[in-house]
Amino acid sequence: MGRKDLEFFFNPKTVAVVGASRKPGKVGYALLKNLKEFYKGKIYPVNPNADEILGLKAYPKVSSIPDEVDVAVIAVPAPKVIDVAKDCGEAGVKGLIVISGGFKEVGPEGAELERRLVEVVRKYGMRLIGPNCVGVYVPKTGMNTLFLPRERQGFPKHGGIAFISQSGAFGSAVLDWAAMRGVGISKFVSYGNKADVNDADLLAYLREDPDTRVITIYIEGVEDGRSFLKALKETTPVKPVAVLKSGRTEAGARAATSHTGALAGSDAVYSAAFKQSGVIRAYGMEELFDIGMALSMQPPAPGDRVAVLTVGGGSGVMTADALADLGLKVPRLSEETVSKLRKVLLPIASPYNPVDVTGSATDEHLIESAKILIKSGEVDAIVWLPYYIVPGISPNLNKEFMKALKEVMAEVKYPIPIVGVATGGSWTWKFAREAEEMGIPMYLSPERAAKAVKALVDYGRWLRRVGTFDEYVERFRKFKGY
Amino acid sequence: MGRKDLEFFFNPKTVAVVGASRKPGKVGYALLKNLKEFYKGKIYPVNPNADEILGLKAYPKVSSIPDEVDVAVIAVPAPKVIDVAKDCGEAGVKGLIVISGGFKEVGPEGAELERRLVEVVRKYGMRLIGPNCVGVYVPKTGMNTLFLPRERQGFPKHGGIAFISQSGAFGSAVLDWAAMRGVGISKFVSYGNKADVNDADLLAYLREDPDTRVITIYIEGVEDGRSFLKALKETTPVKPVAVLKSGRTEAGARAATSHTGALAGSDAVYSAAFKQSGVIRAYGMEELFDIGMALSMQPPAPGDRVAVLTVGGGSGVMTADALADLGLKVPRLSEETVSKLRKVLLPIASPYNPVDVTGSATDEHLIESAKILIKSGEVDAIVWLPYYIVPGISPNLNKEFMKALKEVMAEVKYPIPIVGVATGGSWTWKFAREAEEMGIPMYLSPERAAKAVKALVDYGRWLRRVGTFDEYVERFRKFKGY
Repeated sequence: MGRKDLEFFFNPKTVAVVGASRKPGKVGYALLKNLKEFYKGKIYPVNPNADEILGLKAYPKVSSIPDEVDVAVIAVPAPKVIDVAKDCGEAGVKGLIVISGGFKEVGPEGAELERRLVEVVRKYGMRLIGPNCVGVYVPKTGMNTLFLPRERQGFPKHGGIAFISQSGAFGSAVLDWAAMRGVGISKFVSYGNKADVNDADLLAYLREDPDTRVITIYIEGVEDGRSFLKALKETTPVKPVAVLKSGRTEAGARAATSHTGALAGSDAVYSAAFKQSGVIRAYGMEELFDIGMALSMQPPAPGDRVAVLTVGGGSGVMTADALADLGLKVPRLSEETVSKLRKVLLPIASPYNPVDVTGSATDEHLIESAKILIKSGEVDAIVWLPYYIVPGISPNLNKEFMKALKEVMAEVKYPIPIVGVATGGSWTWKFAREAEEMGIPMYLSPERAAKAVKALVDYGRWLRRVGTFDEYVERFRKFKGY
Repeated sequence: MGRKDLEFFFNPKTVAVVGASRKPGKVGYALLKNLKEFYKGKIYPVNPNADEILGLKAYPKVSSIPDEVDVAVIAVPAPKVIDVAKDCGEAGVKGLIVISGGFKEVGPEGAELERRLVEVVRKYGMRLIGPNCVGVYVPKTGMNTLFLPRERQGFPKHGGIAFISQSGAFGSAVLDWAAMRGVGISKFVSYGNKADVNDADLLAYLREDPDTRVITIYIEGVEDGRSFLKALKETTPVKPVAVLKSGRTEAGARAATSHTGALAGSDAVYSAAFKQSGVIRAYGMEELFDIGMALSMQPPAPGDRVAVLTVGGGSGVMTADALADLGLKVPRLSEETVSKLRKVLLPIASPYNPVDVTGSATDEHLIESAKILIKSGEVDAIVWLPYYIVPGISPNLNKEFMKALKEVMAEVKYPIPIVGVATGGSWTWKFAREAEEMGIPMYLSPERAAKAVKALVDYGRWLRRVGTFDEYVERFRKFKGY
């Protein structure tokens, strides 16, 4: 299957909303309202008892819409879904997103309903996301089937991270958080019971999606482990995949079973599968996106030696600890490099690793040190801690720093990743956000930055192992303009 | 030494600022400006070349101020500090806060200067915070010696957490972060080289400070380990102490030595000391304050059995995993409790542990479940995940939930701690902040909430071991109005 197979779900020309409602509070109201606000294509509300909803002409059924319909979003009670699906099939709809619950997750009767739904979908050659899901959100095209009202639910901006979530509520909450945090999303998919489109299909699609630079996944359990593993193995040589797998412990697995009916399976099996396929495993939502941001913005590391470049001594110590905790090297620098650093730094600065430019530093101290470190060939990644609050650091730091990086990265064999730490409040985060806009992920604490570096080191190691490191880095150079 | 010995540093009637400056950009300018903005007592700028600074009459030296001076904040070059200190001694000043660097941290000459400074301080019976520090910040009295300009540095509100930082820059950054995060601080102290006032002195003071409910400390190394350990042992039976000790690894220790000259010492020694004295150890800034918030707002847990009460199934699974990862129990509930829960919940809800009220739940489902769990005697702590975004959860939830908690906690032998998870964006955090104002700490992710619960379980175990659990809980009941 190629990428085009699912493209219509994310970039449809027309969308029908079956179960669209005029009543605020109803799923079919908020869904239509959100879609109308975001989506740039044509929307057809479907409701046999309405002529118009939210200013859009309504139709009694999908087959009465005088236009080709790419995707039908269905939010009617479960027993009615089969007939709607048939009507969609007759009308030539390409894909269904079934929001409605009441299928496999509620027991044998629901499972039978779901089996029949899949039968209809297959018969007409359609594809199906769901049932029992919140569907998709694509900032770039505005395709949006989320049904929480806008004032409760934030929607993130466009960016390089695709996010697949087995849990709809968790997926919604994460998008809401991502909007506040400034994390950019390429595609979001909540596939619920994954009766048709599953993890393997989405991996195949996202692997070829030019807007997606990293794929993040929340899963509780996978039924077709073999195809999932195969899809992972085909994806990771091309794009990084980070997975948050819950139900890892006895207590968690018990909870997962009662939540999605997922048989969480032995965690050792998943661990082995992830290791075999080069998947980066996250152990929490923040970690998943900390990793996702790093992999979407920075190249993989060519090795495991890390330099710490800091304005604050204490944070430098903590960063060294955090890196060492994860098994990364914080090497002593050569005499030659130390003496080059000494020449550009203040006498009170520390030219070792961590390179501590001190709170009396200026932009230039950080920039010149970074250049020396990158050119030295002695480190494979840099964690920088710019402390935007100190008096000598100017509001131009990020711009000048990025300019210098671009120049020097072009001169070295492999560009090395840079991630930042920005412990602080509003002033600090204004500039940290700016740095992120320029392509350097910034973290609130040394520990989180260290985990991000670890992911870049691990992914670099994986790419070298499967032989696609150079190829991947070349693509990254183009993307970064290095 | 009793509490009164250091009280003047935190609640002075008068403060002199030696080295006060009219030039924006100078430490002596920003320091005076911040102090003037926050502090409610009398301020006397000291500068021989000025008659008035920032609208305040200036004096040539401290001894020429026609008033008793409680504290002199000194920000003049190191070689001039000795004479200023002598003048302060003659003028009957009680305490010096020496911001200036250029002492022990710069080598033997500085160390000699520092020795002489301590001699002067002792001779006149004064106390000294610093040198080479950013001093103190006390939201309640407005005492504030931080010297970063207001637009770069945020200042947190009053609250129950005391924070001692060996690193001034890190301390400033953390306060700035705390302001943004909404963490309340009772006292902040950066003591720099701790030539006189040290960790042990501050522990003795804070242990008796009625505004402080938990003491958090960032240290790189301690010189007088014996007195530190003694002070910790005297403090933890009365108040919880959480420590972030950096320089734990070889790379970190190397960095610490070049930062504060601290001999970081073997981490095993610190670990043993913390264990012996009931200190809760944090491994990062966010963790330190996550723990601090829990301990300042919630009672210690009477045991290690935890219930998860959630609106979102996926987050419930992750919470169970995170708790189990830390060795906490997520027990199955008794038949009796399950059947009581079933009666108040929706048919699609899961009345086991995690108790999953589902996204269709209302306030009442959460409140009634919490009551049943607390009364059951089967759990020692609750993690609740209210998902403020779902339609059935009303803006009154927090208020009603707190009301119910107060009632039911009064009926049980030991109140149990409640911590929350609020994964989401602005709507969610508006309500999460409200819950925090009402006394329930709220975390962005299950993993962080689980660590907070772990701290409450560990501290409960410690209090039972040293025999002060009942006494501590009684004080907490009064504080919470339970």
